[in-house]
Amino acid sequence: MVSGVEEAKETGRVEAFSDGVFAIAITLLVLELKVPHLPDGGRGRLAAALLEEWPSYLGFVTSFATILIMWVSHHRMFSYIRRADPPFLFANGLLLFVVTLVPFPTAVLAEYFERPGATTAGAFYAGTFVLGAIAYNVLWRVAIGRGGRLLRPGVSQEHIDELTASYRWGIPVYVLATVAAFWSVHATIAICLGLWAFWVVVAARNA
Amino acid sequence: MVSGVEEAKETGRVEAFSDGVFAIAITLLVLELKVPHLPDGGRGRLAAALLEEWPSYLGFVTSFATILIMWVSHHRMFSYIRRADPPFLFANGLLLFVVTLVPFPTAVLAEYFERPGATTAGAFYAGTFVLGAIAYNVLWRVAIGRGGRLLRPGVSQEHIDELTASYRWGIPVYVLATVAAFWSVHATIAICLGLWAFWVVVAARNA
Amino acid sequence: MVSGVEEAKETGRVEAFSDGVFAIAITLLVLELKVPHLPDGGRGRLAAALLEEWPSYLGFVTSFATILIMWVSHHRMFSYIRRADPPFLFANGLLLFVVTLVPFPTAVLAEYFERPGATTAGAFYAGTFVLGAIAYNVLWRVAIGRGGRLLRPGVSQEHIDELTASYRWGIPVYVLATVAAFWSVHATIAICLGLWAFWVVVAARNA
Amino acid sequence: MVSGVEEAKETGRVEAFSDGVFAIAITLLVLELKVPHLPDGGRGRLAAALLEEWPSYLGFVTSFATILIMWVSHHRMFSYIRRADPPFLFANGLLLFVVTLVPFPTAVLAEYFERPGATTAGAFYAGTFVLGAIAYNVLWRVAIGRGGRLLRPGVSQEHIDELTASYRWGIPVYVLATVAAFWSVHATIAICLGLWAFWVVVAARNA
Repeated sequence: MVSGVEEAKETGRVEAFSDGVFAIAITLLVLELKVPHLPDGGRGRLAAALLEEWPSYLGFVTSFATILIMWVSHHRMFSYIRRADPPFLFANGLLLFVVTLVPFPTAVLAEYFERPGATTAGAFYAGTFVLGAIAYNVLWRVAIGRGGRLLRPGVSQEHIDELTASYRWGIPVYVLATVAAFWSVHATIAICLGLWAFWVVVAARNA
Repeated sequence: MVSGVEEAKETGRVEAFSDGVFAIAITLLVLELKVPHLPDGGRGRLAAALLEEWPSYLGFVTSFATILIMWVSHHRMFSYIRRADPPFLFANGLLLFVVTLVPFPTAVLAEYFERPGATTAGAFYAGTFVLGAIAYNVLWRVAIGRGGRLLRPGVSQEHIDELTASYRWGIPVYVLATVAAFWSVHATIAICLGLWAFWVVVAARNA
Repeated sequence: MVSGVEEAKETGRVEAFSDGVFAIAITLLVLELKVPHLPDGGRGRLAAALLEEWPSYLGFVTSFATILIMWVSHHRMFSYIRRADPPFLFANGLLLFVVTLVPFPTAVLAEYFERPGATTAGAFYAGTFVLGAIAYNVLWRVAIGRGGRLLRPGVSQEHIDELTASYRWGIPVYVLATVAAFWSVHATIAICLGLWAFWVVVAARNA
Repeated sequence: MVSGVEEAKETGRVEAFSDGVFAIAITLLVLELKVPHLPDGGRGRLAAALLEEWPSYLGFVTSFATILIMWVSHHRMFSYIRRADPPFLFANGLLLFVVTLVPFPTAVLAEYFERPGATTAGAFYAGTFVLGAIAYNVLWRVAIGRGGRLLRPGVSQEHIDELTASYRWGIPVYVLATVAAFWSVHATIAICLGLWAFWVVVAARNA
C-alpha cells in the first residue's frame, strides 16, 4: 500500500518534527541569559554587570554548538535513511528527549560554574551528553539493523561503517568529561570543546 | 480548480503546522525544570537539590512520552489522509489545543505530586488526556466520515477499522486514570504509563 | 532565471516560516497559565485555586481560536498565491508581527478581566485584532494587485471577490469590539466569539 | 551517490531548520513585553502603565524588523544555493547563533533605554548586529567560494556581485551605530532604522 513517494513523505515528516525540536531547543537557550537589574540605572556599571554573566555566555555558546553539531549529525544520518517505522520513531524520540533536555543542565552549569556546586553541575552537564551519545548509537543501530530495510538502497557498507565509527567516540569521551568534573569543571568544558572541534574537523574533511 | 498536487500541498501544510505545535509543546516542557537556588553556592547540596526535583522529572518524562506518542499517532493517521477541508482543520485545531495545554497540567502535577493537592493535580493531569482522546476520536470521525472523501484512495476498510479500534481505549482508560486520582495519584501515573507501554508495543508490532 | 519549480519552492518557504510563527505564537499562550502556589500544599483548595484562574483560560481559549482561524485563513489565501516578491514578504511580515503580538494583550486581558483596568485591557485586546484585520487586507491587496502576477493562473475573479468580501467585515467588527470595551468587556469578548463562530460557519459551508 | 533530488532535499532541510530558528527567535521577542502589575487593579492607570513600556515596544518592533529582514535576506541567498556541505552548515549555524541571540540585547536595550546604562545597552544592541553582518558575509563567502560548487547552475556573476554588494554596507554601518551609542542611543536606533528602510527599498526595487 505504501509507494516510494509516500515513504519519502514519511521520512520528511520525521525530519520536519525533529528540525522543529532542534530549532526550538537551540533558541530557548537565550531565555537563560538574564537582563541585569541595577537599581541606579546602570551608569558605568551595566557593562561590568553584563561581563559578569560570562558563565551564562559560555554555557549558551557550548550548548548552542552541541545542539548544532547534533543537528548536523542527525541531518547526515537521515541522508542514509529511506523509511521510518515505529521503533525508529521512538528511538528518534529518545534522541529528541535529550535535545529538549539540554537547556536545563546548561542553566544549572551557568548558575554554579564558579561556585561550590560546580562539580555536580559539570557532571550533570556532561552526563546529559553521555545520554545523547547513547541515544545516537541506539538510533543508528535501529536504523541499520533488521537487514537494513530502513536504509536508502544506494548506501554502501563503507559509508555505514564510517558513520558507525564516528559515533564510537561519543560515549567514552563524554563519560571521561563527566568523571573529570570531580577534578575540575574546566577540564569538563575543555574535553567537550575538544570533542566538538574534532567533529567539526571530521565533518569538514568529509565535505 | 484543485489538482492532486495542490491537495498534497494542502495536507503537507496542515502537517507542517501540526508538527510545529507538537515540537514546541514537547520542547517547552523543559521550562518547568527549575535551577535550584542555593544560598551557599551548592557545596555538597546541589546534587541533593537536583534529586529533590524528581516529581518535575517524572512529569517531564511522562508528558514528553505522551506528546511523542500523540505525534506518532497523528503521523500514522495522516498517512491515510488525502485532503484537508475546514471541518477537518478545526477538528485538528481542537487536538492541537490539547497538545499545547499539556505543559500546564504537567507543571501543576509536578508542583503538587507529593503534597495534599495531589488528588486534584492528578485528576487534572489525566483529565487533560481524556480531552486529548476525545479530540483524536473526533478528528478521526471527521476524517473517515462523509463518504471517506478526505481519505487516500488505496486505504482499505480493514486499515480504517484497525485505527478506529486503536482509538477506542483512550477515553475509558484515561477516565479510569482520572477517577483513580481520588484514590491514589500513583495509580493515575501507573495507568498512564501502562497505556503508553501498550501503545508502543502495538505500534512496534504493526511495524 | 526563475522556473516554475523554484517559484513553488519560494512560496513553500514563506509558508514554512509563517507556519512556524503561527505554531509558536499559539503554543506560547500556555506560558500565561500559572501554577497556583498554595502555602499549605493545596488540600481541598487546589481545585478552587485552579478554577479562580478562569479569566486566564478564557483568554487562552479565545486567543488560541483567533490564531487558529488566522492560520486557516492564511492557509486559504496562500492556496491562491503562486509567487512571493519582497513587497508580499514584508506585508506577510506585518501580519506575522500581529500574530506574535497576540500573547501579550491576551495576558493583559487575563490579568485585568475582573478588575478596574478591564476597559483598557479589553480595548487593547480587540485593538490588536483591528491591526490583524488591517494586515490581512493589506496582504491580500498586495497579493491581488499589480495585474495579479503573484496569483496562481487558474484562480477565477469570482474566487478573488469571495475572499475579498470575507476580509471586509474584520476591521469594522473589531473596531466595534474595541469601542464596546468602554461599555463592557464582556460585550467585547462576545463580539469576538460571534465573529469567530461566523467565520467557522462560513469556512465549513465552503468546504 | 547523491543525486539531484537528494541535493534539493538536503538544502530544504537546512532551510527548514533555519526557518524554525528565525520563527522562534522572532516570536520569543513577545516574552519581553511584561504585563504591568498594578495593586489597585488598574482603574484609569493601566493605559498609562502600558504606554510607559514604550521602550519595550520600540525594542520589540526594531528586533522584529531586523529578524524579518535577516530572514528575507536568508531566503534570497538560499535561492542561489544548490548544495549544503559541512562548512556551509557551520557558517549557517554561526548566523543562526546571532539570530537566537537577538532577544537578549533587545531586552537589555528595552530595560536601560531611558536610564544611565543606555550607552552600554545601545552599543551592545548594535554590536550584536555587527556580528550578524559578519556572519552574513562569512556565509556568503563560503557559499560562493571553492569554485562555486554550492551554487545553483543558472546563477550569473552579475547576480552574485549584486548580492555581495548588498552585504557590503552591513558591517561599517552597524559599527557606526555601535560607536554612535557613546554619543546618543537615539542615534544608534535612528541608524538601524535607516539601514532597514534602505534594505526594504532595495528589496522592493528588485521585485
